Amino acid sequence: MFLKNCWYVAAWDYELIDGKLLARTILNEPVLLYRGDSGEVIALNDRCPHRGALLSQGRREGDSVRCMYHGIKYDQTGRCVQIPGQDMIPPRLRVRKYPLVESAHLIWIWMGDPARADRSLIPEYAPLHDPKWKGLPAYLHYDANYLLIVDNLSDFAHLAFVHTNTLGGSEEYAFVTKPVVIEKLERGFRVERWHMNSESPPYHKKVIRDKDTKVDRRNHVTMLIPGIFYMETAFTPAGQGGEKGNLQNAREYRNCQYMTPETESTTHFFWAYLNNYEGEDSTISRSLLDSLIEGFMEDKAIIEQQQKTLDADAGFQMLGILADAPLAHFRRVLEKLIQAEQSTAAAPAAAAKETSLA
Amino acid sequence: MFLKNCWYVAAWDYELIDGKLLARTILNEPVLLYRGDSGEVIALNDRCPHRGALLSQGRREGDSVRCMYHGIKYDQTGRCVQIPGQDMIPPRLRVRKYPLVESAHLIWIWMGDPARADRSLIPEYAPLHDPKWKGLPAYLHYDANYLLIVDNLSDFAHLAFVHTNTLGGSEEYAFVTKPVVIEKLERGFRVERWHMNSESPPYHKKVIRDKDTKVDRRNHVTMLIPGIFYMETAFTPAGQGGEKGNLQNAREYRNCQYMTPETESTTHFFWAYLNNYEGEDSTISRSLLDSLIEGFMEDKAIIEQQQKTLDADAGFQMLGILADAPLAHFRRVLEKLIQAEQSTAAAPAAAAKETSLA
Amino acid sequence: MFLKNCWYVAAWDYELIDGKLLARTILNEPVLLYRGDSGEVIALNDRCPHRGALLSQGRREGDSVRCMYHGIKYDQTGRCVQIPGQDMIPPRLRVRKYPLVESAHLIWIWMGDPARADRSLIPEYAPLHDPKWKGLPAYLHYDANYLLIVDNLSDFAHLAFVHTNTLGGSEEYAFVTKPVVIEKLERGFRVERWHMNSESPPYHKKVIRDKDTKVDRRNHVTMLIPGIFYMETAFTPAGQGGEKGNLQNAREYRNCQYMTPETESTTHFFWAYLNNYEGEDSTISRSLLDSLIEGFMEDKAIIEQQQKTLDADAGFQMLGILADAPLAHFRRVLEKLIQAEQSTAAAPAAAAKETSLA
Repeated sequence: MFLKNCWYVAAWDYELIDGKLLARTILNEPVLLYRGDSGEVIALNDRCPHRGALLSQGRREGDSVRCMYHGIKYDQTGRCVQIPGQDMIPPRLRVRKYPLVESAHLIWIWMGDPARADRSLIPEYAPLHDPKWKGLPAYLHYDANYLLIVDNLSDFAHLAFVHTNTLGGSEEYAFVTKPVVIEKLERGFRVERWHMNSESPPYHKKVIRDKDTKVDRRNHVTMLIPGIFYMETAFTPAGQGGEKGNLQNAREYRNCQYMTPETESTTHFFWAYLNNYEGEDSTISRSLLDSLIEGFMEDKAIIEQQQKTLDADAGFQMLGILADAPLAHFRRVLEKLIQAEQSTAAAPAAAAKETSLA
Repeated sequence: MFLKNCWYVAAWDYELIDGKLLARTILNEPVLLYRGDSGEVIALNDRCPHRGALLSQGRREGDSVRCMYHGIKYDQTGRCVQIPGQDMIPPRLRVRKYPLVESAHLIWIWMGDPARADRSLIPEYAPLHDPKWKGLPAYLHYDANYLLIVDNLSDFAHLAFVHTNTLGGSEEYAFVTKPVVIEKLERGFRVERWHMNSESPPYHKKVIRDKDTKVDRRNHVTMLIPGIFYMETAFTPAGQGGEKGNLQNAREYRNCQYMTPETESTTHFFWAYLNNYEGEDSTISRSLLDSLIEGFMEDKAIIEQQQKTLDADAGFQMLGILADAPLAHFRRVLEKLIQAEQSTAAAPAAAAKETSLA
Repeated sequence: MFLKNCWYVAAWDYELIDGKLLARTILNEPVLLYRGDSGEVIALNDRCPHRGALLSQGRREGDSVRCMYHGIKYDQTGRCVQIPGQDMIPPRLRVRKYPLVESAHLIWIWMGDPARADRSLIPEYAPLHDPKWKGLPAYLHYDANYLLIVDNLSDFAHLAFVHTNTLGGSEEYAFVTKPVVIEKLERGFRVERWHMNSESPPYHKKVIRDKDTKVDRRNHVTMLIPGIFYMETAFTPAGQGGEKGNLQNAREYRNCQYMTPETESTTHFFWAYLNNYEGEDSTISRSLLDSLIEGFMEDKAIIEQQQKTLDADAGFQMLGILADAPLAHFRRVLEKLIQAEQSTAAAPAAAAKETSLA
C-alpha cells in the first residue's frame, strides 16, 4: 500500500535525452516517460489499452506515441488519435496520463488523483536550483522496499559499522556521537548530529588537500514523506566553533536522495551529492560520485538482505532501540496518511476537488 | 482451462527420430512421446506411477519403456509388465496412454476422454499431403498463452507495424487494405485480405527473380479451434485480375501453424511455410524458413511481453477495435465449448460413448 | 511440517574452521553457527532482532557476535550485551540460542523445545568414534524434500538401475536379490540384503587388488528418525560363508548419511563412507569419496526431478510396490510423531519439563 496523492521523483532529466521512450514501473504501475518534440515531458500508462502491448516499445511521433503492434496512436494527453484502417475512434480507447512537473533536473510524478496534483506540494531542494552547488545526478535500483532505505538513512550509527572505510571513518562515531536534535515534523523528521575533533572520513579525505587536520563534523538530516532525504554536511576545523555557526574554512556538502517505490519490494533511488567548492575542477564531483556509489553498495547489500529475510518470514518482528524514534515516527505518520487516503478513496468521488496543476 | 476433447499437434515426426524419448508438457500434463520398434508412435503420461520418476529419463525397450529408478517396465498400452524382484503386478500400476494419430508428418494427440478420440475430427491440411507443396517443418516455444498467438494471427494489420521489414513490407498495408471477407465459422473464422498494386514484401522478394514488378497480394486465413491456422497466399502481377481468379504467373504459398498449450502461459508452436514452385531448388524453402523465423521472433517479443503485462496485472482489460471481430468470435466460441465440456465432465461418466479410434 | 524435538546434524566440524560464521537454514529457520574463542560451538538465530540484518554477515568477537548494521552485540547465550550509543539494554532484545552437541566431528542441533534437548537421544554412530574406521566427511545440497532421499535409501533395487556403473554393478542385483530381513523399528527400520557370487561393483573394484574374484556382498541398512542412515557393507570371497559370519579376508565398509531439512523442498546431506583396511594409504578414502559423489549425483538427478514433478502436480499419488514396505513404515511412524508433537505444542506450555542439556 502506497501513498498516492503526493509527488514522487520519476526520473532525472538526463534519462529522457534524445526523445527516448523510458519504461519505468512506479507504485506498481507501468509508466512510459518521454520528452516530446515540443519539449514537454509526458507520462502515460505504458500499456496500449487495445491489446496491452507496451507503448515504450512503440514509436514517438512528435509529442505522440504510436503502439507498434497494430499502429494505434495516442497524443500527449493519452487520447487515441488514429486507428489504422478504422475511421471512428471509440472515446474510451485512451491511455491514462499522469501529472508531471520538471524542476531542477528532476521529473516529478503524481500517481494519485490528478485533480489534487498541486505543484506547490513538491518539496523542492534549494541547492539543486543554485548553480554554486555542483555535483553529478545518479540512479540506483534496489531490490528492497523503499522504507528499508528510509530506515537506513534515519540512524547514522550505521555509518560506523557499514561504512567504516568509506563514508563513516570509524566505529567510534556510533559510540561517542549522538543526535543533538531530533525533531518530529508533521510529514517527516529532522536530526542533527556532530562528531567533534574527529578524523575526516575516507570519502572526504580523497577530495581535500589537508588530510590530517582534525575536524568537527556536522550532519543535518531532513526526511520527508513519502521518502525524500535532504542533508547538510559541514566539516569545520576542530575547535573553531562550527557548532556555534563559525563556518570559516569549512567544507560543505548538500545531499538529496529520493526513494520512489517501484513495487512493494523494489525501489528507484535517485540522488545527488553536491559541493560548493570545486570551482571548475569537476574531478571532485566525480570522486564524490564514486565514493557515494561505493557507500551505497554497502547499504544495498544489507538492505536487500533485510528484504529477503522479511520475504522468507512475514512474521518476523523488528524490535526498536532508542535510535529508532525518528523512523518509528516516520512510519507512523506515513501509515496514517495512507489510511486517510484509502478511506477518502472509498468515499464518493464527487468529493474530488477541481484543483488543477496550472 | 483448456478444451480437452479435440486434437492438438504434439510433435512433428522428425522430433521422434531414432527412438528418442521426447518429454513434452501438453495442457499442463507431462507426456512422453516415442516411436517404438514396431513403428507405432506412442504417448504415455511421463510419470512412473510408482515414485514419480520421469519415464522420459528411462530406457526404451522395443515398444515398451522402463523406468530407470527401480526398473519398472510399461508396455505401449501403459500396462506395467515387470517389477524387478516382485512377481505379482498390481493392475492399478499403469500409466495413462493418450490417443495419437500420425498424419502428414504431424503427430496429433487427444488429451480428453479417449473414447471420444475420433480420427475424422482432425482438421487435416491438404497441402501437407500433396507432394507438390514443399517446405521445411519447424518448431518454436513461446512464453505466452496460445490465445495471444491466435489473436496475433487474427488481425493482419500487425504485418504493417511488427513486420514492416520482413513479412509485411510497408505500413501502408494497415491503412489501405481491409479484410474483404470476414466469415464466422462454427469452430473458427475465415478472413480474406488483398493488397492491390503493392511492392512485394521482403521475405518474398528474397526468393523471386523479378523483384520490382508490382503485385496484387492476397492472404486468405482460416483459423480453427483449438488454435489451428491455415493460410493461402498468392502474389499475382498487379492488375491482371488475381482477385477474379486469374492466377497466371502467380507465386503461391500455403502456410499451417499449430498452437498447442504447454501451460496456461506457455505454448508449443509448430509450423510449415510451403511453396509450389521451387522444383528441386530447396534454397527457396530454406530462405522462407529463415524469413518466417525472423518474422515470428518479432511477434514473439510482443506476445511474450503481453503475457508479462497480463501476469503483472490480472485486472487489465483489453478494449476491442473493429478489427478484433474475428478474435472476439473465436474466443467466444472456444469459451462456450470449454464450458460445455466442463459441465459434461461433471455429469455421470456413464454418458461416455464407446466411439474408439479404430 | 517437521519433527522439531529431535537431533539433526547441523554441520561437520570442519565447516566451522577458523572462527567462520556459517549461515545455514535448518527446518526453515535461519541459523548462525560458529566456534567461539573458548572452543564452544554456538548456534543462534541468524537475524538481528533489531532490524533483521544477518548476524552471519556480522563479526565474531570472542564467543560473541556483533551485527554490523548498527553494531549491536550478542553473547553466546543470545543475550544483547551492547548497543552503541545506548546505555540501557532492553531484555527482550535477545537472539534465540539453539542447543548444540559436538560429537565425533558432527555438530548436532535441537530445533524444538530446548528443555527437552537430551544429549542421550543422539543416535550416535560407533564407527565415527573408532579410529580404525577411516574416511572423509562430505556435504551435498539437494533441491528436494529430505524424505525423497530417505525413500531412495530404503530400496536398494535402485542400485541396479541408477548406479549400474558406479555403486551398483549390474541390473541383475534387482532381479536376483531380495532383502532377507526387513525389520520395523519403533523409530525406523532395518533391512539386510545379500548378493551371492557376484562381481564386485565398480566403486569397490577401484580400491582392491583382486578385481576378478567373485564375492558375496552384504548390505545391512538401519534408517532412523528423522532421517539418519547407517549401513554396514561386507564383501567376502564367494562361497566361504560370509552369510554365516565368516568374514575372513572380507573387505568391510561403514557408511553414515544424515538428511537434515533446509526447507520443505531442500535438504542438507552429510555423509562419510568409512573403511577399516586402508592403513596409511588415504588414496583409498579419496577414491571412495569420489565414487560416492559420482553415485550420489546419479541419485540427485532423479530425486530433484521427483521434487519438480510433485511441485508441478500436488495431486500426484505415488503407488507402492512390495519393496516400499520399509519406507511406508518410516513415513507412518514419522507422521505419528509429528502429529503427537503438534498436539503437545498446542497444549499449555506449562507442561514443558525442565530437563536441560547440562
